Amino acid sequence: MPLWTIHHTPAVFTADDKHQLAARIADHYEKVGLPRFYVVTLFQETRPEDCYVGGEPTRAGVRVVIDHIARHNPDQESRRRTAQWIKGILGPHLEQHTGLHWEFHVDETSADLWMINGIVPPPGGSEAERTWARENATSVY
Amino acid sequence: MPLWTIHHTPAVFTADDKHQLAARIADHYEKVGLPRFYVVTLFQETRPEDCYVGGEPTRAGVRVVIDHIARHNPDQESRRRTAQWIKGILGPHLEQHTGLHWEFHVDETSADLWMINGIVPPPGGSEAERTWARENATSVY
Amino acid sequence: MPLWTIHHTPAVFTADDKHQLAARIADHYEKVGLPRFYVVTLFQETRPEDCYVGGEPTRAGVRVVIDHIARHNPDQESRRRTAQWIKGILGPHLEQHTGLHWEFHVDETSADLWMINGIVPPPGGSEAERTWARENATSVY
Repeated sequence: MPLWTIHHTPAVFTADDKHQLAARIADHYEKVGLPRFYVVTLFQETRPEDCYVGGEPTRAGVRVVIDHIARHNPDQESRRRTAQWIKGILGPHLEQHTGLHWEFHVDETSADLWMINGIVPPPGGSEAERTWARENATSVY
Repeated sequence: MPLWTIHHTPAVFTADDKHQLAARIADHYEKVGLPRFYVVTLFQETRPEDCYVGGEPTRAGVRVVIDHIARHNPDQESRRRTAQWIKGILGPHLEQHTGLHWEFHVDETSADLWMINGIVPPPGGSEAERTWARENATSVY
Repeated sequence: MPLWTIHHTPAVFTADDKHQLAARIADHYEKVGLPRFYVVTLFQETRPEDCYVGGEPTRAGVRVVIDHIARHNPDQESRRRTAQWIKGILGPHLEQHTGLHWEFHVDETSADLWMINGIVPPPGGSEAERTWARENATSVY
């Protein structure tokens, strides 16, 4: 958790852009207490002839799919804050591209159906989670 | 919303087939009132040695994953109608392939956790949504 | 259902490893009564510069996303058993890789929004499902 899958047409991101964006995403989750290694970001380049917006091939598109597992939003207000927070991460990397279609959505799935390195991650906010965050690694707890 | 990710082995679709199918998908959502640009379709070609059905590599397979965000089905009857409607879109493109495994499923996720071009899409059925649909573009509302 | 999407960096799996793992996954679902062809496994290789863990490119990473459709877990205890069961499938293929980050999560989606070869799959545990399992193929029921 979280898993960010970033589908993008060519020429939207340089190799350096990808690294910077991935680091920025990890920074944000780390700030709210999650172990940094929880954050996995995958970039998947797609050719315009494999990426359609409104039924037409797209030369400049970014479609981000985010899975949230370790933390869920209890109500609509907090979901909306989460969306604004994600916009704040992505916007600076994408807003300067004119004519770009960029879009994201988040799915929330059960923390009970999740493991890292064969270990059930510790409960959110627990001492064990803080240890994982401090050491940026899994350990038996 | 909707995001259609179409995993397929080689030789199922020509470039022209992809464009026609993507347009047909967008047509259907447009008819029920959604802005056409809401519909994103990604084709992801997978080699038989990376695509297994029942544990065996598959020469002819299509696996479609659909995310619905802007509109949800309130009950089982409407979910079943949605599945029939999707079958109606895909069938004509796939039924003539003998020996093809083709399968789809839909996930429904929260409209609160979704943005396009950094803007919260207008509520379903609102005047602002009709404007987005008419102009086929986002705008501040 | 189930759909296993296995994102992995190069050199984690040989072609033979992929086939063996896909077969092992299908074996497990078959044992609990599902038709073997319900199980689709996709391998998606990702370059280290497209795969970030904690904001850094990863040379050895496996991120598995599983969609469960035909069967859902009714409570936390059964979800936890499901996670242990999945660990039991993946572990023997991954635990020997030192320095590998491997992680999975499962999403559960509605069986009403699902079709194979244009047919609504039979109810779980039904005679028709047993026929599909025995013949390892869809048929009108």
